[in-house]
Amino acid sequence: MSFLDHIHACNTYRAERFLPLVMGGTRIGWLRHDNIAALRRFPAVFSAEIDRVIEALVAEGRIDKWRYEDFAVAPRWGRPPLFKLDRGAVAFFGIRAYGVHLNGMRRDAAGLTLWIGRRASDKRVAPNKLDNMVAGGIGHGHGLDETLIKEAAEEAALPRDLIDHAVPVGALLYRMETKAGLRDDVLFAFDLDVPADFTPRNTDGEIAEFHAMPAREVVARVRDGDDFKFNVNLVIIDFALRHGLITPDEPDYLDIVAGLRRPLD
Amino acid sequence: MSFLDHIHACNTYRAERFLPLVMGGTRIGWLRHDNIAALRRFPAVFSAEIDRVIEALVAEGRIDKWRYEDFAVAPRWGRPPLFKLDRGAVAFFGIRAYGVHLNGMRRDAAGLTLWIGRRASDKRVAPNKLDNMVAGGIGHGHGLDETLIKEAAEEAALPRDLIDHAVPVGALLYRMETKAGLRDDVLFAFDLDVPADFTPRNTDGEIAEFHAMPAREVVARVRDGDDFKFNVNLVIIDFALRHGLITPDEPDYLDIVAGLRRPLD
Repeated sequence: MSFLDHIHACNTYRAERFLPLVMGGTRIGWLRHDNIAALRRFPAVFSAEIDRVIEALVAEGRIDKWRYEDFAVAPRWGRPPLFKLDRGAVAFFGIRAYGVHLNGMRRDAAGLTLWIGRRASDKRVAPNKLDNMVAGGIGHGHGLDETLIKEAAEEAALPRDLIDHAVPVGALLYRMETKAGLRDDVLFAFDLDVPADFTPRNTDGEIAEFHAMPAREVVARVRDGDDFKFNVNLVIIDFALRHGLITPDEPDYLDIVAGLRRPLD
Repeated sequence: MSFLDHIHACNTYRAERFLPLVMGGTRIGWLRHDNIAALRRFPAVFSAEIDRVIEALVAEGRIDKWRYEDFAVAPRWGRPPLFKLDRGAVAFFGIRAYGVHLNGMRRDAAGLTLWIGRRASDKRVAPNKLDNMVAGGIGHGHGLDETLIKEAAEEAALPRDLIDHAVPVGALLYRMETKAGLRDDVLFAFDLDVPADFTPRNTDGEIAEFHAMPAREVVARVRDGDDFKFNVNLVIIDFALRHGLITPDEPDYLDIVAGLRRPLD
């Protein structure tokens, strides 16, 4: 593996395999050709009947199953949603989804340390893989800050007075073909300095254990292996670039810098 | 003005106005159609005769004048150069050029402060505009670190033991049509914490004066005006994103994040 391999693994989208999903003149998703065929039976997809359509697609195995968590479908970030969709159907329709990822860090005498979680073995996506201290999708009707506060409490028992110091540090953008369709993802990244006496503690069963690891070791593990959840690699590579842990001596430096944020469209 | 206006101003490249300049099967630059016509007289441009060609183009006013500073022409960053070219001719041939930009910062009780320089009135490019504490082009045969150390000493009298703490924090990539041709630029960005008792002092006549400005004020000035050198706006926008001074509440947040690094090709 290499840093670039992880970036490429998250950017497997090939334009010729998808057609734009348009609503009211606005492109809101990307449909793979086989998914378009599967939708032909439903003449009025985007109505109150959307749930019935998804149910049929779940029955056929085209969508894994209901996640019972709504995502918003909006023409762009910050705009009011056009409608909402079960999280499990987001990739089928190639709807852009938004998440938050928090790098929990300590600045020790020996350098930077990162709190890394191991995902529970019963997670649907990437079981047992390593993860950021806090991460989660932004659901319909929930703001970014609200999501960060909620996930920080559930995933790492981070108190409100600590998470309020999280610093927004940018976003990662990638587009990845999946079994169901397309992940068109935006991850808002945050850094948070946590005190030396704080230890994260999971409360919702999604993280099996936490370890404090020297950031250099985390970055080397990302580069050399496949221990982290696919998109967490991007968040850590971005962290490494911003904190001087990947330097311009790296032969792929510019490809890495440019590769973390695919152009918006 | 807005953050996005500055990004657009640095990305005026339109593919249909240029053709690739190829050498030994590798694309090394971009030639505008009028510049191609002007080169037709010289059947063997890329040889020892390149200087004679540039001289003729200077005489015709297609290239402003000799800068007496060589830039390297390489297939990509980190690779050995194929040849060298006077800095004044780089845009004519649309050769990728590399520079260093240093954000000189203090973490005061009231927040972040940035050291901002005002460019001398006799600078060829962007006279009197505001600039980073240190910035400069990477010349042929000079490494990135060497350039940073040299420019830091010349432009701001930064001693070696201070500049050695500069942290590489990424790169900005933009492509901008100019009178001469094309700026295809990569700016390596660095952050440096400078002590409260340090005041930069210019020694090479390129910066007329330095001011320590609250970073929030710098960012607002970038957003609302045109006081800074065109590409310095990008470096400061990137600084603001990394330090939480531009947040996801900003309606153009994702366009800004994605717009600072055009894809490499």
